[in-house]
Amino acid sequence: MKRILIYDTTLRDGAQGLGISFTVEDKLKIVKKLDELGVSYIEAGNPGSNPKDMEFYERAKRLKLENARLVAFGSTRRANITADEDENVISLLNADTDVVTVFGKTWDFQVTDILKTTLKENLMMIADTVSFFKAKGKEVIYDAEHFFDGYLANREYAISTLKAACEAGADSICLCDTRGGIFPSEIEKITRNIAEIIPVPLGIHCHNDTGMGVACSIAAVQAGVRQVQGTINGLGERCGNANLCSIIPSLQLLAGYSCIPEECMSMITSVARAISEIANIAHDESQPYVGKASFAHKAGMHMDAVNKSSVAYELLDPSQVGNQRTFLLSEVAGRSAVLKTIKSIDSTLKKDSPETKLILDKLKEMEAKGYQYEGAEGSFILLVKKLLGHYKPVFDLKEFKVIVNEPTVNTVNSSAMIKIIVGDQEEITAAEGAGPVDALDSALRKALERFYPEIRDVKLTDFKVRVLDSASATAAKVRVLIESTDETETWTTIGVSADIIEASWIALVDSIEYKLLKNE
Amino acid sequence: MKRILIYDTTLRDGAQGLGISFTVEDKLKIVKKLDELGVSYIEAGNPGSNPKDMEFYERAKRLKLENARLVAFGSTRRANITADEDENVISLLNADTDVVTVFGKTWDFQVTDILKTTLKENLMMIADTVSFFKAKGKEVIYDAEHFFDGYLANREYAISTLKAACEAGADSICLCDTRGGIFPSEIEKITRNIAEIIPVPLGIHCHNDTGMGVACSIAAVQAGVRQVQGTINGLGERCGNANLCSIIPSLQLLAGYSCIPEECMSMITSVARAISEIANIAHDESQPYVGKASFAHKAGMHMDAVNKSSVAYELLDPSQVGNQRTFLLSEVAGRSAVLKTIKSIDSTLKKDSPETKLILDKLKEMEAKGYQYEGAEGSFILLVKKLLGHYKPVFDLKEFKVIVNEPTVNTVNSSAMIKIIVGDQEEITAAEGAGPVDALDSALRKALERFYPEIRDVKLTDFKVRVLDSASATAAKVRVLIESTDETETWTTIGVSADIIEASWIALVDSIEYKLLKNE
Repeated sequence: MKRILIYDTTLRDGAQGLGISFTVEDKLKIVKKLDELGVSYIEAGNPGSNPKDMEFYERAKRLKLENARLVAFGSTRRANITADEDENVISLLNADTDVVTVFGKTWDFQVTDILKTTLKENLMMIADTVSFFKAKGKEVIYDAEHFFDGYLANREYAISTLKAACEAGADSICLCDTRGGIFPSEIEKITRNIAEIIPVPLGIHCHNDTGMGVACSIAAVQAGVRQVQGTINGLGERCGNANLCSIIPSLQLLAGYSCIPEECMSMITSVARAISEIANIAHDESQPYVGKASFAHKAGMHMDAVNKSSVAYELLDPSQVGNQRTFLLSEVAGRSAVLKTIKSIDSTLKKDSPETKLILDKLKEMEAKGYQYEGAEGSFILLVKKLLGHYKPVFDLKEFKVIVNEPTVNTVNSSAMIKIIVGDQEEITAAEGAGPVDALDSALRKALERFYPEIRDVKLTDFKVRVLDSASATAAKVRVLIESTDETETWTTIGVSADIIEASWIALVDSIEYKLLKNE
Repeated sequence: MKRILIYDTTLRDGAQGLGISFTVEDKLKIVKKLDELGVSYIEAGNPGSNPKDMEFYERAKRLKLENARLVAFGSTRRANITADEDENVISLLNADTDVVTVFGKTWDFQVTDILKTTLKENLMMIADTVSFFKAKGKEVIYDAEHFFDGYLANREYAISTLKAACEAGADSICLCDTRGGIFPSEIEKITRNIAEIIPVPLGIHCHNDTGMGVACSIAAVQAGVRQVQGTINGLGERCGNANLCSIIPSLQLLAGYSCIPEECMSMITSVARAISEIANIAHDESQPYVGKASFAHKAGMHMDAVNKSSVAYELLDPSQVGNQRTFLLSEVAGRSAVLKTIKSIDSTLKKDSPETKLILDKLKEMEAKGYQYEGAEGSFILLVKKLLGHYKPVFDLKEFKVIVNEPTVNTVNSSAMIKIIVGDQEEITAAEGAGPVDALDSALRKALERFYPEIRDVKLTDFKVRVLDSASATAAKVRVLIESTDETETWTTIGVSADIIEASWIALVDSIEYKLLKNE
């Protein structure tokens, strides 16, 4: 079984997608998910172009990864200076990863008309930058930007850029179709030619501008590349990068390649969903393998046939990718992921313990109401603690009342009154805010601080709202996700209700309970 | 330039997509759009399996199509009866189209295990049904369901089914990858083999279950097929059908084939959007060519390069497919789209009129605050009317107060009091709801109905919330989109605020003002 190295660039090229913006916290969460999925490389940023990325690499050093290695990405040095005079090159070095990816120009027109330097200097820029990082002991991947366009425009020059990287010691070379316009048959033919000329392992990096990013990547694999770059859910600039959630199952389950550890394959659906949640974008439900529609059957004839024999209209058993057939809806697909959390709370529990069944049943019930714990581990841990009896409420709500007034005076237009009981003591207080949720959040904290001063350490860092059944208009159910942090940890909690205030309240209470219970 | 016949099945196979349901009205509208786009065939339904489809074909006879021919789709006759004894075959005939597509089984396992008949009888079913329609003077396309799976399982039998159709007089034969699991290289190889054996023109019908539906269709074209089946926006069961909005521009603009009349190509983006609207689903904005993100540039380096030379990061000029580059949005690119709306309100205004500049400046200002009018034309039209002085407020708000109480009694936990002035009359009233926005919506309508009874016709059909700067947590800005409808039109309005109630209020008021002003 031929091994393919999966190189994920969700956090770098994927972050170029319209409407995508990852915080450092988001990035750290995503790195953990990708490592669990078992990819080989995680390209997490361009420290030269983005100061936030430098902070990420600083904090990422403390992560213990099991499968993946972190990669920092950056350009070749600028023209007419040495590599160590270039601040982007130095930033890339300072990211302090074992692996660096250096990208450079292949297409003659890009060198002369965009970079505005000479073809010869570009070759030196490539060679110098690769040598610089090899001398520092790095594994160096050279990304040949616009490779295929360059090859079609000036084959000889394109090949000379690859040779420059290769002779300077690059460990592997990735051929990029940066504009995403080359057809798979052409990708295959050109890649075969290059594999005969270039002695180091090759990679492929495709975009989806003709809708063929996945097919182009697979064509390159069939032509012999060993590394495939792409993003989860196909996120990325313009029409996105090649979708790893399509490539990995296709190669591994249909074509006999090995991309990720076998036991990780059934996590791919939950990882894909978690990353959509973190990015706060609607998950693409009709994408292959990992969407809600991927194995959804509607035609009566197809359902009958699938009941007789699932291969009639399905490529593989949905559970192989941790997904499920839709007309059989809530089976037990997520069981192994769930079991991990359950064991972290009570290590004596097993797959077939009655408590495990209880939790899975509750989970199904909550999912039917619109809860989605894949992006809200904090609430899920609380739910498990409640069901296992490892929980006592930290306060009781007697009542709250939120009042929104229009016209607004300054930015404050809302006030909240709250009455709670802690032990045998009652507390009533009130607060104002920019909007009802803000007022309610302030009032709750104010009421609790007297009893639990550690609440002062908690900061809400993110607030996301999604309308679940938007066609019910203003009475539609909404899902609120709240991310909180203290000095040591970040957690996310969830609330669902037809009333946005109530949904926010549920998530707020979970956040505070999570904080107070984790310190026990 | 080789001619490719585009065969659209949005209305038949596309309608199998999750959440898609077309009325007869919807279908008639879509047929007109597809004809304008210049496809060759429109497969609009399966009259045997769907009584609604029969009504459609009845009404469709009155349509005058310029480019396309309507096709009705149905199965081969059932086993052990004659074609004219089969009510589905008769329904297909009664649809009264010039072209019929008959589908039949290719895969031996499907014949014996799903249809539960003999391999020999299946060949007769194919031959009889094709002959029946040829004798009625129809153009007959034979769809070989599961062709590629069948070919790989039992090549000889698969080929014998095609020969049966061919000898019975089929005008062309379409090879279907019904499960969507065959790789493009395999599709190409097998299609080449078949083209040598089968004397009639071939077609291809692919699904997207590995994310390669477009690539497989193009591979088949490279192997010689003359007809390509697919759907607009790739709608369809499971992961959808091959996306014609990707296939048509790729073949025609990048590979030198002719699919639709040259002058129609720039309509493809608006046709794709219109069909998403009619289907009432979110348009896939990152699909190739026809999405808002298809030509959106985010990386500063890419923007600089595209400014120097657009081919640096773009395959073609977005205007070729009626789309636009995104980073110039509120600058020059959006100007022509904006101008269209401006002219619809005041036809004397020109690109360089001072009023146009005023509107564009206001647009930029509002976009900076988080407004986004591309999905909210209703609010944009109001904004333009306000700036041009074609607007007077339909009411003045004195104040409102919304109260949310916890614990909830039944599902109602919110009440809203509102005081408005219309002309010289004051109205104060109140209403309850499931959540504050619902209560406020009810109260506002109640207050206005006395003055504007036509408000009773307005229904809110969709409500969307997005948090804009989610890291500000509960004080983050939110954007609310509200979709409303009356008997003749659907419009969307927008509100942005740090307070979700206020954002919803702004969008609600716009919705109602839009309704009242459009009738003037």
